[in-house]
Amino acid sequence: MTTLRELTSDDIEAIAIGAAILGTGGGGNPYIGKLRCQQELKKGNRVQIIGLDALDDDAFVVSVGGIGAPVIGIEKIEQGEECLRALRTLEEFYGRKADALIAAEIGGGNAMEPLLTGAQAGIPVVDGDGMGRAFPEMQMTTFSIYGKSSVPAAIADEKGNVVIYREVLNELWFERLARSTVIAMGGAAGSATAPMSGRYAKRAAVPDTYTQALGLGNAVLDANRRHVNPIDLICAREQGVRLMDAKITDLKRHLRGGFAVGEIQLQGVGAYAGETGTIALQNEFLTFSRNGTIEVTVPDLILVLDLDTGHAITTEILRFGQRVAVVGLPSHPLLRTPEALAVVGPAAFGLEGVQFTPLARAGDGNV
Amino acid sequence: MTTLRELTSDDIEAIAIGAAILGTGGGGNPYIGKLRCQQELKKGNRVQIIGLDALDDDAFVVSVGGIGAPVIGIEKIEQGEECLRALRTLEEFYGRKADALIAAEIGGGNAMEPLLTGAQAGIPVVDGDGMGRAFPEMQMTTFSIYGKSSVPAAIADEKGNVVIYREVLNELWFERLARSTVIAMGGAAGSATAPMSGRYAKRAAVPDTYTQALGLGNAVLDANRRHVNPIDLICAREQGVRLMDAKITDLKRHLRGGFAVGEIQLQGVGAYAGETGTIALQNEFLTFSRNGTIEVTVPDLILVLDLDTGHAITTEILRFGQRVAVVGLPSHPLLRTPEALAVVGPAAFGLEGVQFTPLARAGDGNV
Repeated sequence: MTTLRELTSDDIEAIAIGAAILGTGGGGNPYIGKLRCQQELKKGNRVQIIGLDALDDDAFVVSVGGIGAPVIGIEKIEQGEECLRALRTLEEFYGRKADALIAAEIGGGNAMEPLLTGAQAGIPVVDGDGMGRAFPEMQMTTFSIYGKSSVPAAIADEKGNVVIYREVLNELWFERLARSTVIAMGGAAGSATAPMSGRYAKRAAVPDTYTQALGLGNAVLDANRRHVNPIDLICAREQGVRLMDAKITDLKRHLRGGFAVGEIQLQGVGAYAGETGTIALQNEFLTFSRNGTIEVTVPDLILVLDLDTGHAITTEILRFGQRVAVVGLPSHPLLRTPEALAVVGPAAFGLEGVQFTPLARAGDGNV
Repeated sequence: MTTLRELTSDDIEAIAIGAAILGTGGGGNPYIGKLRCQQELKKGNRVQIIGLDALDDDAFVVSVGGIGAPVIGIEKIEQGEECLRALRTLEEFYGRKADALIAAEIGGGNAMEPLLTGAQAGIPVVDGDGMGRAFPEMQMTTFSIYGKSSVPAAIADEKGNVVIYREVLNELWFERLARSTVIAMGGAAGSATAPMSGRYAKRAAVPDTYTQALGLGNAVLDANRRHVNPIDLICAREQGVRLMDAKITDLKRHLRGGFAVGEIQLQGVGAYAGETGTIALQNEFLTFSRNGTIEVTVPDLILVLDLDTGHAITTEILRFGQRVAVVGLPSHPLLRTPEALAVVGPAAFGLEGVQFTPLARAGDGNV
């Protein structure tokens, strides 16, 4: 639990590694965001996180992040103040300055955007987020699931265009309208969404996820420094389940409706020799099967890590022959309620007939 | 010049006829808007127009109108309060109620929207507009040409979605972003744009165009009642130039980039027997040529009227064999300045090498 913590350049390095792991294959690359945050520190600005418990009930909290296809984010580099302009627009709309920012998703590049914008605006970022991982669509946040509309929301591009979503019929309409604007803007933009009270953030945010990303990143860095196996360290600190060590033997991956969808075939190695595995993906990893039987599904986290370094292997850099460790992490209870499963459970990803069977924490029985 | 005038159901009937004529082939059909305005009168609401001279310099004036392809407006009938919701959103944004509304284009269906919204909101509509006719794109208004940005602007659909354009790089970006949103909304929506002062409206609006539409419509109705030729009456009251009476002998019309583009071939009849004519079109009529030589171009108005009834024949109802009168009306001086010609002159419609030669009012020499 953080009250108010100043992040160092090393902390930001570790958070970027941890955020990539929590991206479960998606969420975009935190690399450029990390460099930008470190640059803010060099300018003398502060990157701060604040624990949910330390937040005033009446605090005005805004979610900021990049919106658009991650692949475009790599080629169309941000001007760097898109999210800040979106934030300023919402502040103007409410006639009130934000007291803190919050990430919609801790997984991948969008973990870095609030830190960057917070440094620019001089306000802290809540230690928590709306997914506890990455998901492909904007309505898949606990903010939205537990009743906070994403609007009023603002979207800003690098050219100076700023659009406000004042009212939407529902969250799917917000996703549709905002997506069409972002495409017209060139495919990537900054957003400020889901303005909420500190009280609501305490109720609906997945807590302590920056601390979690920081710990995960430090575990990887530490293991690599000490030449010990990072997978064991990661599983130990997260009560994660080591599902399989394997070699990627086949890979189907194509674009459908703007998403990378496909399947990875695995052949167990070491202690897992003789087993086969399959991972289905839609930007993020959706299910893990062993010998043809599904063992883990969304919203639980399926991590595909480099077997030697422990770094995340994201959907776009998967390739034949890679040696990986597949690790399962139980999702936060906020993602396992009936309301949440309707939005982020297997059926929400079109996996008809697949039941969500919660993965137990390692050591709690199960698996 | 109107100070404040209450419109009757007959006035609205006449304005719809006149607005269709000023649409120069485009602008959409005023029919549904007319019925809605007449319905407001039956409910006891008032439809009022106010002269530019009677407007306070500090009045808060907002332009309202439908946005989207006219052809969709026919099939996807408005819920009826789209523009009102867009207006209310801008009022909320400014923390100020509008004192009057103004039409972006008097030509076609968008002449009726401000009258409808004004009746709903209980405020008058300025006797003037931003085009003095119809043009296909949103940036082609005198408001925009003389320096008033279209934003902040709001767009509302029939489902309850409302989007605000807070800042745009330029008017073309507004057109692009708003267009993409309207397409996502289903192709048609209501807009509130170009919030301006009474002072600016007096400087930049094409004046007295509701009075003009009313007079044109009454001329048509009067001629039909008295069984006299409506074309002569129209030309007389507008100092219009009767360019040709003709039969449509060929018609090329196709969709390109969301616009109806094409060409009409004419064979002169009566006093014009032996002459040929050509009209190029892009939603609206762009040029009129006689025997291969261009005589009239945008921004001057080229009207294609039913030779017997004087009613406008719009681009979508043109057909082979129709007997028409082609009439030229000089455009307002505000459309003939170098700034205006850069946006609504021949070159702006891709007519390379075509010079704008102003049509003189009938009786002033020329033609």
